[in-house]
Amino acid sequence: MQAQAIYQRAIVFDGLNICNWSREIFEQWQRGGITGVSATCGLWEGFRESIANVVQWKKWFEEHSDLILQATSVNDIRRAKREGKTAVLLSWQNTSGIEDKLDYLRVFRDLGVRKMQLTYNTQNYSGAGYVEANDSGLTGFGREVVSEMGKLGIVCDLSHVGAKTSLDVIEYATVPPCFSHILPAGMKDIKRNKSDALISELGRRGGIIGLSQFGPFMQKGNDSTIDDYVAALDYVIELAGEDHVGIGSDASQGHARPSEFLEWCNHDKGYARELTPFGHAKVVKPLGPLEQRPLLADAMQRAGWSEEKMVKVLGENWLNYLERVWQAP
Amino acid sequence: MQAQAIYQRAIVFDGLNICNWSREIFEQWQRGGITGVSATCGLWEGFRESIANVVQWKKWFEEHSDLILQATSVNDIRRAKREGKTAVLLSWQNTSGIEDKLDYLRVFRDLGVRKMQLTYNTQNYSGAGYVEANDSGLTGFGREVVSEMGKLGIVCDLSHVGAKTSLDVIEYATVPPCFSHILPAGMKDIKRNKSDALISELGRRGGIIGLSQFGPFMQKGNDSTIDDYVAALDYVIELAGEDHVGIGSDASQGHARPSEFLEWCNHDKGYARELTPFGHAKVVKPLGPLEQRPLLADAMQRAGWSEEKMVKVLGENWLNYLERVWQAP
Repeated sequence: MQAQAIYQRAIVFDGLNICNWSREIFEQWQRGGITGVSATCGLWEGFRESIANVVQWKKWFEEHSDLILQATSVNDIRRAKREGKTAVLLSWQNTSGIEDKLDYLRVFRDLGVRKMQLTYNTQNYSGAGYVEANDSGLTGFGREVVSEMGKLGIVCDLSHVGAKTSLDVIEYATVPPCFSHILPAGMKDIKRNKSDALISELGRRGGIIGLSQFGPFMQKGNDSTIDDYVAALDYVIELAGEDHVGIGSDASQGHARPSEFLEWCNHDKGYARELTPFGHAKVVKPLGPLEQRPLLADAMQRAGWSEEKMVKVLGENWLNYLERVWQAP
Repeated sequence: MQAQAIYQRAIVFDGLNICNWSREIFEQWQRGGITGVSATCGLWEGFRESIANVVQWKKWFEEHSDLILQATSVNDIRRAKREGKTAVLLSWQNTSGIEDKLDYLRVFRDLGVRKMQLTYNTQNYSGAGYVEANDSGLTGFGREVVSEMGKLGIVCDLSHVGAKTSLDVIEYATVPPCFSHILPAGMKDIKRNKSDALISELGRRGGIIGLSQFGPFMQKGNDSTIDDYVAALDYVIELAGEDHVGIGSDASQGHARPSEFLEWCNHDKGYARELTPFGHAKVVKPLGPLEQRPLLADAMQRAGWSEEKMVKVLGENWLNYLERVWQAP
């Protein structure tokens, strides 16, 4: 079957977007044939701001119900496919939103925030981010957070988490965590990328690895193409297995670079010291704009991928993973 | 001169109390001849609860102005001595009250919270507490907190802080931190106590070490006497120098043991997992009730202390230290 026909029939799930949310973005998802998206709605925010973000999304679900619906189950994502819409999984890139309260995990789970990264770039109560100079691993409170997330059926994401904390969580968690948007350190050895050992271990334990398309962290840097992205997928599949790899594009469409938003992302707690040069550096994203996402299927076919492999990596692997985590409670 | 005469003339400063605050406690300070006290008014609280605690104290300063006054300068403490009152230094045993906002340091400094422990027992944004299994040291955010505290003239207390984080702060801070209420690991090797090396280094850099009277952490455990307490003072003076040692009794008078309050202290964030057995274990405090504090002077004299040494350790060392930190801004 031709790549585009496969793509049109497939569930396409993107494990991380952090766009400048608007109807325009929702339309681009639709034009790009993207069935489901993990949408960042929390990064440095505390409890109140995180509640406000959820409320904003609930309003968008009403206002743009012709384009988007909220995903709190895998069935919601399959329904979105049938209805030609995009299912949105409200997601955090930090656990700052629970502040110091384990009980708030349940509050946000019940509001539909069913995927949370343990920490974003720096140290918090639970563990260290990858930018922190030293990483002592999962803290005592972090163990309680991870256990509670497992019980509540909240996906634990380790993408921006430090290496030691990531390994601790992978070993400690009874419900497998994920790397929703990473690249392999085996292809470019920088701290934000994940080692072969971590990727293999996460796959072995039933987690999933979504690959980001952040040019500077790819082997060829900002010269990377969509075919290089598929090569990175193949590299990670070799480590974690064909059932444990998916897309996690880290698309940030609609944000200018530099922008106030990216500067906020790129300072500790949103305002303190600068963490990386990527708030203003050039960043090529080889998958292109969201509406060009179908081109990924062509690249997969150029790489000799079978229809089954394409369907799994485009979305079915993510759905199988989410099914297992969300059915936990 | 007789011990009691020296005591009556001396400034007596206690580097940490965590009592069940009431007029009764304030009266006991007065009867005990205690000139100044670092009073814990924050342990696990966030911003709003910490503001409420300050407000409560401001009301107490009004209601009990015959007994207590607020200390925001060393002159306030000397004034309390002249007026036969006790000067209260509002203090935190955690930086949870600033949540993730460096600017809140200034808010609380201006309200008179001029002594803060970096973290209480567990990991926070700035560093690890001593109960945490692993300690990666002062975090990136922690460096910003310590710098800002130095600029604002807020005492940085490391008593419950982990060994690696403590060392990092001692080396990083331009304004010397303190151990306000500790015991030496050289006399009893447990994690809460501080190593000879840390104590020496803190003294060398102009910090101060206040000795607590927590029986279980003393060499003879709950059999320790007031003379053992003076022996511990001498041990620490040997390491840090006679100008860098004081009292930090950790008196918790008025709280039942066990009590809801001590259970709250003894669980991470006030409610999560239990951290130590000391919320309900037997704890002998060899200095006795606050009103018996003058007996400490007798014990010092029994140990052959000079008047000068007594006066320094009873309070002048603390005042010299506070003068240096508070004049920083």
